[in-house]
Amino acid sequence: MTTVNVQCRLAARPQETLKATDFDIVEEPKRVANDGQFVVQVSYLSIDPAMRTWMNAGRSYVPPVEIGEVMRALGVGRVVESRHPAFPVGAHVSGIFGVQRYAVSDGTDVNLVDTTLAPAPVYLSALGISGLTAYFGLLDVGRPEPGQTVLVSGAAGSVGSIVGQIARIKGCRAIGIAGGEEKRRWLVEEAGFDAAIDYKSADLRKELKVHAPDGVDVYFDNVGGATLEAALNRLARGARIVLCGAVSQYNDTPRGPANYMQLLVARASMTGFVIFDYAHRYPEGVAQLAKWLKRGELRSHEQIEYGDVADFPETLLKLFRGENTGKLILALGE
Amino acid sequence: MTTVNVQCRLAARPQETLKATDFDIVEEPKRVANDGQFVVQVSYLSIDPAMRTWMNAGRSYVPPVEIGEVMRALGVGRVVESRHPAFPVGAHVSGIFGVQRYAVSDGTDVNLVDTTLAPAPVYLSALGISGLTAYFGLLDVGRPEPGQTVLVSGAAGSVGSIVGQIARIKGCRAIGIAGGEEKRRWLVEEAGFDAAIDYKSADLRKELKVHAPDGVDVYFDNVGGATLEAALNRLARGARIVLCGAVSQYNDTPRGPANYMQLLVARASMTGFVIFDYAHRYPEGVAQLAKWLKRGELRSHEQIEYGDVADFPETLLKLFRGENTGKLILALGE
Repeated sequence: MTTVNVQCRLAARPQETLKATDFDIVEEPKRVANDGQFVVQVSYLSIDPAMRTWMNAGRSYVPPVEIGEVMRALGVGRVVESRHPAFPVGAHVSGIFGVQRYAVSDGTDVNLVDTTLAPAPVYLSALGISGLTAYFGLLDVGRPEPGQTVLVSGAAGSVGSIVGQIARIKGCRAIGIAGGEEKRRWLVEEAGFDAAIDYKSADLRKELKVHAPDGVDVYFDNVGGATLEAALNRLARGARIVLCGAVSQYNDTPRGPANYMQLLVARASMTGFVIFDYAHRYPEGVAQLAKWLKRGELRSHEQIEYGDVADFPETLLKLFRGENTGKLILALGE
Repeated sequence: MTTVNVQCRLAARPQETLKATDFDIVEEPKRVANDGQFVVQVSYLSIDPAMRTWMNAGRSYVPPVEIGEVMRALGVGRVVESRHPAFPVGAHVSGIFGVQRYAVSDGTDVNLVDTTLAPAPVYLSALGISGLTAYFGLLDVGRPEPGQTVLVSGAAGSVGSIVGQIARIKGCRAIGIAGGEEKRRWLVEEAGFDAAIDYKSADLRKELKVHAPDGVDVYFDNVGGATLEAALNRLARGARIVLCGAVSQYNDTPRGPANYMQLLVARASMTGFVIFDYAHRYPEGVAQLAKWLKRGELRSHEQIEYGDVADFPETLLKLFRGENTGKLILALGE
């Protein structure tokens, strides 16, 4: 076994547009586990839009990654060395291990995963933060009722594709917005949405009128920008907007929705939501998501890229170019 | 008695900035009451920021005033002619009578007012829509709890000055934002706010840090723009923003709050609210407001301008120049 750890560290705070050179790839001696610790060999890295916000200085819902620190990332891996009774060698685990080959952990916020129930990458997707974000964001914040219309942006992404499926399970009409005809078709034909709109080719406002003639009751926003403005103009009375992300804004000077006073016209609300606040309810969420998966009512979609730690920057850029369908994951080869 | 009615009609939709020439002053023969109708001589006109939005075409919470129509306005007046048993000659009434000397009504949405309990102008202020807007907006949408910090913009205005007083009655800390040192002092010395900030002379963000060190739990927004952005940056965890108006935006190309994703950082909500939805609960609101007024816990502040219908455009401009303290009212001479 190698004695070298490869890490991807933050080299610079991005100047608006993210660049591969904002990261450094560094080798350091692999650390050993002290008493109460264990070493995880990371197999799969979760590639998330939120990573862009973690790279900025300033107040947010988690502290920023500091320059020179290992880039923050969720991952799934295997315990390869252990001095911790609850995490024996060979166990599969998920946690915030960072973008590196080997992570040392004391078990804080680390969960054992059962790879006989679902393949390891699913624990970064439908049974991981993406699934939980969709579950609690839609059901707790959006509170859709059967027969209502649920609109989701970034619909072909990891969270969005699950939001639409849960909306359908709950008896709602699910409309997705995504970029490109391929994703649009995928949403309707594979992910089971009632309708989908390719914002790149279509007139979004016109399409929303067609697909949501009575207005949108819940809008689950992953992107912000012009898409949020189009949704605001189409709100049903008493609508709920769930603010989950604003991926269109992360690489630019942020711009607020100019028509935010449509919230008044529609007597609607816009509520921010951070999945980490639901940590005490993850078991409930995972149990429900696993039940739906098992029954075939929910499908987990992953796009797995194979590479190593050095491929992380390019894989993250791929996410921001919108080149993924479903959950983007970087699998680290042996 | 005169046989002439003087009206102020909408002449043109304002091009961004409101001008006096957007209105026409017109004389027409005074109409008579048919069966089931009565004629009101309007004594006091309510001058409201929302008037600016009523002048715009397009979707809003009420239909726009059409070109050539009498400008919409709330008023208080006296019945001078009646063929309606519930509204006899001499009765004092409030309703949406429009900017005109005489209005004909069938009693729809008209209320009798008791001028022995409070002077007539108070029925356009603390006991009218302004008081009710403050009451339901703050308590139902903002849901402040004792000990929490309530921030209100447009604090020296009709709604804002009552929001702060109700916050105090409910055991909250009330902070007001207004333009000018005179208003700032008035808020603290007359209206009983705990603190007030003159946004024209002060560094708003710095002052908010001083006066709301633990953050703002409820922000009642009447103005939008840079003030809303400053409040967003100062939200306490779980804060509620009540969207009541956006007076800073009415005369300009609207601009959304660039930092709206602070709603996510703070797990906060922003909810639009229209007082007319609470019509079925007005009696409850008026009863409570009257009780507080009687006990001296709440004070109604009016700035009454004396003139006639032709003075309406200039009085409305005065409102948008921020020249009023408390409720701005135009009293129509005999």
